[in-house]
Amino acid sequence: MAVPEKPESKCDVLIVGAGPAGLMMAAWMARCGINARIVDKRSTKIFSGQADGLQMRSLEIFDSFGFADRAWKEANHMIEICMWNPGEDGTIRRSDRIPDVPIGLSRFTQIVLHQGRIERFFLDHIKKYSKDSLHVERGVLPESLDIAADLCDNHSPDSYPITVKLRHLTEEEATPAQSNGSTVSDGLFRSNLADDDTDDLIAKSREKQGSTEIVKAKYMVGCDGAHSWTRRQLGFKLEGEPTDFIWGVLADVIPITDFPDIRMRCAVHSASSGSLMVIPRENKLVRLYIQLTEIKPDASGRADRSQITPETIIKAAQKIIAPYNLTYEYCDWWTAYQIGQRVGTNFDYKQRVFLAGDAVHTHSPKAGQGMNVSMQDAFNLGWKLGLVVKGIANPSILKTYQSERRRVAKDLIDFDHKFSRLFSGRPAKDVLDETGVSMADFKEAFLKGGLFASGLSVDYGASMLVAKPGDAAEQGDGTDVASSSKTRVIGKQHLASNIKLGMRFPSFKVLNQSDARPWHFQERLKSDGRFRLILFAGNVLSPAQKSRLDAFCARLAASPRLKPLLYTHIDVLTCHSAPRTQTELLRDFPEVLHPFSARTGWDYDSVFADDESYHEGYGDAYRNYGVDRESGCVVVTRPDQYVGFVGELDGEEGWSGVEAYFGGVLVG
Amino acid sequence: MAVPEKPESKCDVLIVGAGPAGLMMAAWMARCGINARIVDKRSTKIFSGQADGLQMRSLEIFDSFGFADRAWKEANHMIEICMWNPGEDGTIRRSDRIPDVPIGLSRFTQIVLHQGRIERFFLDHIKKYSKDSLHVERGVLPESLDIAADLCDNHSPDSYPITVKLRHLTEEEATPAQSNGSTVSDGLFRSNLADDDTDDLIAKSREKQGSTEIVKAKYMVGCDGAHSWTRRQLGFKLEGEPTDFIWGVLADVIPITDFPDIRMRCAVHSASSGSLMVIPRENKLVRLYIQLTEIKPDASGRADRSQITPETIIKAAQKIIAPYNLTYEYCDWWTAYQIGQRVGTNFDYKQRVFLAGDAVHTHSPKAGQGMNVSMQDAFNLGWKLGLVVKGIANPSILKTYQSERRRVAKDLIDFDHKFSRLFSGRPAKDVLDETGVSMADFKEAFLKGGLFASGLSVDYGASMLVAKPGDAAEQGDGTDVASSSKTRVIGKQHLASNIKLGMRFPSFKVLNQSDARPWHFQERLKSDGRFRLILFAGNVLSPAQKSRLDAFCARLAASPRLKPLLYTHIDVLTCHSAPRTQTELLRDFPEVLHPFSARTGWDYDSVFADDESYHEGYGDAYRNYGVDRESGCVVVTRPDQYVGFVGELDGEEGWSGVEAYFGGVLVG
Repeated sequence: MAVPEKPESKCDVLIVGAGPAGLMMAAWMARCGINARIVDKRSTKIFSGQADGLQMRSLEIFDSFGFADRAWKEANHMIEICMWNPGEDGTIRRSDRIPDVPIGLSRFTQIVLHQGRIERFFLDHIKKYSKDSLHVERGVLPESLDIAADLCDNHSPDSYPITVKLRHLTEEEATPAQSNGSTVSDGLFRSNLADDDTDDLIAKSREKQGSTEIVKAKYMVGCDGAHSWTRRQLGFKLEGEPTDFIWGVLADVIPITDFPDIRMRCAVHSASSGSLMVIPRENKLVRLYIQLTEIKPDASGRADRSQITPETIIKAAQKIIAPYNLTYEYCDWWTAYQIGQRVGTNFDYKQRVFLAGDAVHTHSPKAGQGMNVSMQDAFNLGWKLGLVVKGIANPSILKTYQSERRRVAKDLIDFDHKFSRLFSGRPAKDVLDETGVSMADFKEAFLKGGLFASGLSVDYGASMLVAKPGDAAEQGDGTDVASSSKTRVIGKQHLASNIKLGMRFPSFKVLNQSDARPWHFQERLKSDGRFRLILFAGNVLSPAQKSRLDAFCARLAASPRLKPLLYTHIDVLTCHSAPRTQTELLRDFPEVLHPFSARTGWDYDSVFADDESYHEGYGDAYRNYGVDRESGCVVVTRPDQYVGFVGELDGEEGWSGVEAYFGGVLVG
Repeated sequence: MAVPEKPESKCDVLIVGAGPAGLMMAAWMARCGINARIVDKRSTKIFSGQADGLQMRSLEIFDSFGFADRAWKEANHMIEICMWNPGEDGTIRRSDRIPDVPIGLSRFTQIVLHQGRIERFFLDHIKKYSKDSLHVERGVLPESLDIAADLCDNHSPDSYPITVKLRHLTEEEATPAQSNGSTVSDGLFRSNLADDDTDDLIAKSREKQGSTEIVKAKYMVGCDGAHSWTRRQLGFKLEGEPTDFIWGVLADVIPITDFPDIRMRCAVHSASSGSLMVIPRENKLVRLYIQLTEIKPDASGRADRSQITPETIIKAAQKIIAPYNLTYEYCDWWTAYQIGQRVGTNFDYKQRVFLAGDAVHTHSPKAGQGMNVSMQDAFNLGWKLGLVVKGIANPSILKTYQSERRRVAKDLIDFDHKFSRLFSGRPAKDVLDETGVSMADFKEAFLKGGLFASGLSVDYGASMLVAKPGDAAEQGDGTDVASSSKTRVIGKQHLASNIKLGMRFPSFKVLNQSDARPWHFQERLKSDGRFRLILFAGNVLSPAQKSRLDAFCARLAASPRLKPLLYTHIDVLTCHSAPRTQTELLRDFPEVLHPFSARTGWDYDSVFADDESYHEGYGDAYRNYGVDRESGCVVVTRPDQYVGFVGELDGEEGWSGVEAYFGGVLVG
């Protein structure tokens, strides 16, 4: 008997896939208070994760949600990279040590943690901020997608252009079979060597006449992986080619070895047996990426999966790492993959259906980028969708998702292409060995690649969200994202030379004016969906500067456009450069910078001083931000901490820049 | 009908009272795997906490259990103390700012957090480490205590000298009535102005013939507060006198005020209206301690409680803080207390029944010491009881509880006596005003008191647990705690001039040899019940020093006495002074320092280098610890991080000192 269909329902945003990208999107939905749903075809059984490196920028983002500390505490911290190459006798030896990440960029370093834990942090966060109303619906997948193209440009609150039929699987259907019968989990079913099982799952469930439902949505986000069902429905492609490099992964083992650097991140190039990468993890575990030089793709370009077992992988590793011994008693999980670098042609359909994460970029896992870039896709998109759904932001900002993130994806593929080739290539015997990889080049690539891999070099191009000069299409992926307001706003970069337009707001320590507590300034830029107007108030003890500050604040407090948005949608933060102990919150700072509430008194958490702390040194923020201590400036950051505008605090021009910036972004 | 008695049962340790001292004791029981019970007469309803300041040492202790980060994240951080005194015109003005805690002593500073949260961290910890077998039994209190004195010296595993009858209250009986009918919680029932209700609770429950049970225990710990039922059964007294200073507490309010330092810790002395202390808390709350100069004790020495209301308290505050305005819209809780300073005559009965916390010391709350010293009592006792119950440590170590902690309690009362008098006294009008308090003296007391108040100046006297010279009775509270071994061991303080015998092991950053990660060395001294043998291995690249290290390690690995205890009861940590990148774990360090396991390989977490980190500076540990970089030394720390022994790494003497130290402490 057919199970009756559930009644049709509506939601603002439907998220497909509950991996890191989908969960990041759901986190934003929870923070912005959006009526969203998130579905995943897999059952509740969580398998060992593929991804597990967390780059510095991801940790900054986690911190903006409030759970970086959980990851930081549980994770293994990677501090140093050791490079092992053949010496003159052909035997591997440690040739170099370099810091795992560039020094001084962030308050975080790179860490490694089980993906299951990261998903747990997101799930806890989503539960807390959605007040338990948003949770992952597992064993649920879409089987049809209809988009009313004519409704896509209609942004009235009752326009739902998207119709999706969702199928609810049984627990058994949603649990993937594993290819081996051993107690060690085999991840091949998730590897890019495996076929996608979505269509199978749908077909089998149909036979059993499982339950379905119809959902109408305003927006949809496909975070459904490299085989993205959503992408296929839209007819979009991934562009790029597979390589014939095949790698095995022992993920994760407790190694028994006399190799000295087993607790370091290592790149080991053997003379002729391929390469190996060591990623030390928490709880004595180590992840080993091992090049499988003896397994070649067949005529179809695909590796023969039956040849790949934990035994073949560890044997390959032993050859590479000889003369050191390497075995293991415990293996948590293993898999294999074939490197392929591809970027999606389109990241959205009419700014109604979006694709994020592996659905629009695939590449090798060894640089630890996959999960990070995927989460950052959703981190870029989530607040934009949230503000548009709430009717606060102009829907045109949604175009910047593709222009900003497709550009990042392309840069990532370029990076990975270079990096993988160096990694998978045979080391050059000498300078004349032109088909080999120069180990000097390899080290150089690591050093140069560190900034890219940190996630901190992302530099979004000009758009209505980033008031910088230059060609918007050229700086992005070609999408037209020029400002929609009549007069284009251009920020004045020289006023804050290290607060780069388009890049994330960097962090230095400042002191709370009211209680002297030191904070990393970035800690005050929480992911709560608010833009931030940051006043570098300069030397407020100078009467001239004080009157400039007063004038700016008077304009702000009287602005018919911005006043109604203050604190709810535009947070106001102040950092001044006068000595903390010579300044007083109530005497020296206009009320708009620390508003009074009859119920809770003055706001004591929004004004900061660039001054020395008792216990944590001196952040020297003005110097580090490149802002003039006397005259200051004003900065606008987006809800994702990226810098949108920089202007003068002084005079009409800076103020009108602020107003015009928000005019191009917000409705009204 | 009488409820039938439960069957008689046994436990190793019975803890009475589940405040901070009782919970700390239970945490140790969970960590040591002891069969313990913890009962509290109150129901599950947790009222607003009285205590809430956490000093630096308490945070170090929390960190040793693994939950300091939770407190650190949620708490308000107190950074600066502002002093307000009458100026020449009699109006208060800010006269001084000083750091809230001395600089450079600890990686923590003082924080303030709701006691309920602190109890939550303990409860979670106890649940986790006891595998859910130890939990607070609420609404349960002892009504009779019998001690078989002749069994007290019998330490056989089946000797249970203590018999307690426990009474189980109903939920209603266990919930204290509050004195007012308002929605604001009134803490007077917990104040020292209130009578104890234990006898009432027992009598009422008896009328109803509530259920009881008989428990036989090896040890009992009374953490049952200032009115301690346990102390009364033992016939022990608190010695000392009440004063006639009466203080009200608004705990906690969200103040509406133009007083500039409401987010600082403030001491405000008005010219003639008394004093006020401001303690800023988390979530915009502020705790105000307000001297009630108009309320005097009656003939019995007790204040008239009926005169004390939130209205009288805020009015008193307004007089003190004038000309500033002070009101509040929200008040969480309020109470009042009369300062009294008392110390228990005895901290234990035959080392079988112990008293901890308020049961043996009461004093004013304003220096933020109460909860801290109480927890530290139990932190001192818990591991000793744990190791004795498990048959590892000699029962004679239990004598050190009184000698160590009663001495601390006496020092605390002396401190509080001086501090309260300065705080409650009228400020001197000028240098000739001899009955007034000199504000210069007051500031001086704060500066000098900071070290004491931090909890880091605690210096335990000589005993079998602290191998230091001098008179054991004189250095403690008079109890005889000289070493029980034939030859008394005396450590050599000059070998580690800043690792003071009897004080807590200080913390500087060192690098893990195997993965280059920086750690505060103290972070590796977890509260897991283990002693630690810390080898400052010196310059292991010097052949002479290497051979000294090898010789010491050979003795250790061959010691019939210590070898069986290694890793399970004596953890081994190493810190060397050679460059990290020139040393190799497997090549340069004997196996006993990083033991091999067939299942998990080498231990990579026990050898550290005193070297520069990439991102967190240089700990300069040898210099800061006062240890010679070339020749090093050996240190023994107790399970509570206090330093027990310091000796040479070189030669027979240092080794035999280590053996003799453990010989005086451990069974066998």
